[in-house]
Amino acid sequence: MAAAMLDSLQAIFAADAVSVEAAECAVYAYDNSRREAIPDAVVFPTTHEQVVALVALCRGQGIALTARGRGTNTTGASVPVSGGIVASFERMQRILAIDVANRLAVVEPGVLNADLQIALKPHGFFWAPDPTSAPFCSIAGNIACNAGGPRAVKYGATRDNVLALRAVNGRGEEFRCGKPTSKGATGYDLTRLLIGSEGTLAIITEATLKLTPLASDKRTLRATYVDMAAAAAAVARIMAQPVTPCALEYMDDEALRLARNHAGESIPVAGAMLIIEVDGETDALPSAVAAISQAASGPGLIELHAANDAGEVARLWAARKALSPALRTLAPNKINEDVVVPVSCVPDLIAGLKRISAKHGIPIVTFGHAGNGNIHVNLLYRPEDPQQARNAPACLSDVFDLVFTMDGTLSGEHGIGLAKREFMPRAIDPVSLELMRRIKTQFDPEGILNPGKLLPD
Amino acid sequence: MAAAMLDSLQAIFAADAVSVEAAECAVYAYDNSRREAIPDAVVFPTTHEQVVALVALCRGQGIALTARGRGTNTTGASVPVSGGIVASFERMQRILAIDVANRLAVVEPGVLNADLQIALKPHGFFWAPDPTSAPFCSIAGNIACNAGGPRAVKYGATRDNVLALRAVNGRGEEFRCGKPTSKGATGYDLTRLLIGSEGTLAIITEATLKLTPLASDKRTLRATYVDMAAAAAAVARIMAQPVTPCALEYMDDEALRLARNHAGESIPVAGAMLIIEVDGETDALPSAVAAISQAASGPGLIELHAANDAGEVARLWAARKALSPALRTLAPNKINEDVVVPVSCVPDLIAGLKRISAKHGIPIVTFGHAGNGNIHVNLLYRPEDPQQARNAPACLSDVFDLVFTMDGTLSGEHGIGLAKREFMPRAIDPVSLELMRRIKTQFDPEGILNPGKLLPD
Repeated sequence: MAAAMLDSLQAIFAADAVSVEAAECAVYAYDNSRREAIPDAVVFPTTHEQVVALVALCRGQGIALTARGRGTNTTGASVPVSGGIVASFERMQRILAIDVANRLAVVEPGVLNADLQIALKPHGFFWAPDPTSAPFCSIAGNIACNAGGPRAVKYGATRDNVLALRAVNGRGEEFRCGKPTSKGATGYDLTRLLIGSEGTLAIITEATLKLTPLASDKRTLRATYVDMAAAAAAVARIMAQPVTPCALEYMDDEALRLARNHAGESIPVAGAMLIIEVDGETDALPSAVAAISQAASGPGLIELHAANDAGEVARLWAARKALSPALRTLAPNKINEDVVVPVSCVPDLIAGLKRISAKHGIPIVTFGHAGNGNIHVNLLYRPEDPQQARNAPACLSDVFDLVFTMDGTLSGEHGIGLAKREFMPRAIDPVSLELMRRIKTQFDPEGILNPGKLLPD
Repeated sequence: MAAAMLDSLQAIFAADAVSVEAAECAVYAYDNSRREAIPDAVVFPTTHEQVVALVALCRGQGIALTARGRGTNTTGASVPVSGGIVASFERMQRILAIDVANRLAVVEPGVLNADLQIALKPHGFFWAPDPTSAPFCSIAGNIACNAGGPRAVKYGATRDNVLALRAVNGRGEEFRCGKPTSKGATGYDLTRLLIGSEGTLAIITEATLKLTPLASDKRTLRATYVDMAAAAAAVARIMAQPVTPCALEYMDDEALRLARNHAGESIPVAGAMLIIEVDGETDALPSAVAAISQAASGPGLIELHAANDAGEVARLWAARKALSPALRTLAPNKINEDVVVPVSCVPDLIAGLKRISAKHGIPIVTFGHAGNGNIHVNLLYRPEDPQQARNAPACLSDVFDLVFTMDGTLSGEHGIGLAKREFMPRAIDPVSLELMRRIKTQFDPEGILNPGKLLPD
């Protein structure tokens, strides 16, 4: 990095908030995607004004600038592939307001999802997005990637739970969009445009979040089925009746087998399994459980079990919890996609994935958010196996082709980043893709914000 | 209209689907805003392809093109102020699919809101937006204005209930955005950008709507309070506990007085009134009513009454239903705004409006969607009174200034159109406004789509 540029950074940031040390830069080179690229410098903003000055500096010098939450994303969205500067928001983690009467919280970008949930709990509220990485991921990272999680089936993903943003676009212009109100019909929706834009349009410096009251109580059910088609039919029945579950997760036969190998014989043997949760007032739960149980019952049901106490809830979730460590052990280099298809297409997707798996000789395990049709497709590919290494790209391409024939799309909650960028022209209408490029150019004419991400070259 | 242009229109549309007759054009000159401007021609598309050809023609000739649902909006958004062509979508009113397993419906733009609700009911579903004009307003009109209604407090407004769109931008390019899935993290959110854009970015030719299961049952409560501050405190308590009502409407003392004059002594005398509805499984409603009743109770409560049967529900709603005809009789030229403020600011807003009313000598009546802080502010201004006529603009300006000091905004569900365009620079951050202009230019570089609306000159 040129000495003049470093001087300029040091004029904006405190001495301990700029680093060009190789060891420190290396820490900000990678995320959870196994990709990496070392930045020229890392800075640690603590104020909005610093971010305004930083973007102006980068724009003037034509230097790439990548905003970073905690790097938990799986797509390479926070890897600085063009070098330049990483702005890590780990020092902007104040909760600025919790406003119960208006059902909102105002946060700095670096607040961790779980820290916010802990702060909200005594007030009887939560923020709906609940990615698996909640203890380690930041709110602005959730916003950048439109993060979801199991609760999204009832409470929506990030895009449904943000009211307003403060941000700095690639021109170095600061702006606010949205309002601390749950309704608005005053101009174009810039707030939702920024959500899911992966730091390519603007850098978020403050967020006003929509809060949801905590339900008083919850019930957990587990249903096992002879095959995925039977489980998927149950999912469609559950989603067609008025009691919306607050979690509707599934695992396929292969996922159950792996979990059983890892965690023991308490994990059921079945063609597919659903974990279903309903929440609400305690008095309302018996009728909710009855409605869900009726919908979950049908051809191919093996067993439906409702947990009677907290210990049993933990046992019902054990299979799902065992899956991630099992997969990590078995296939540390697995390719993990999070495609979305219409809920009714899930059985055909699963059947099609079995054919693709056989064709390419690559085991595929699926699990995920069945109520949203958001399926985590894990290609258990071992790079050391030359045939699997050869076949993996074609296998992945076939997976996406199958998803596209069902009018599904590349990602439900992980985003695009580097990993899925090349598939965007197959996922997005050419005119829509061109409109996205044109919008990008308006927010960031020199392309300094997170270059090389989301939109293909 | 030039003969060559008319020939070109007749080459696109059937003979009975193009009109330049003055009498017919006059019918498409106005909406519910008391503004009007006669178009040069009206066309009645029946297919997406006709819309593509129409936009290409208008772009080539530089002719203004205003898409029109049923003209129920109150802001002049469908008045063709630059003349040109009105495209009325009243002949595209097919429901293309109702897909219960995927909780969605696919509709042509001209389907009436109420017709869709009737078609959905046997399937056990509804579409959440429920503007008062539901029997007469079109789905694409709801989308253009981001329509709301009482149910929005629980189920969201239009922007929360659309999954995907097919549209034609001002370049004449057709595109699809969104997917028939409830989750997605694949690029910028063009769907939400079009919702609320009032036909200035693209013309919608098909919409995929998110459906919600009908609740099994519902309870209605009415609470009266000594003053608006007591009612607003109750609203804040209601919104801070976990049972979210499916309607939380209020009327101020003046609104109650007018309703009572119009509909008789069954309408209660009070400082303010709330109508609260909760829905859910029948078994769950007693506990829901108990939770709501507890939250509604507090200092200043006069009476809380829960309806025991359908007749009583109708009686509880009678005051609200009597209000619109009462207002029409009293003040046919009233100015009706639908500002939004944070819920906790509603008492200060009401108090401030009383001061503004006294200052300008113009009676102000308020009612609306208290749970969203979305307040219908009615300036009962009589144009024949010279002093009121002189004071009305300053009075309205003071209303908006008060709203802006509370971080509220111009419109919750009616939109901007012509009526509020001049106030946009006071409502929207200058950089955000400039970004909106830049986005407009990308979608519609020649500015042919609904010129003169939403964004100020």
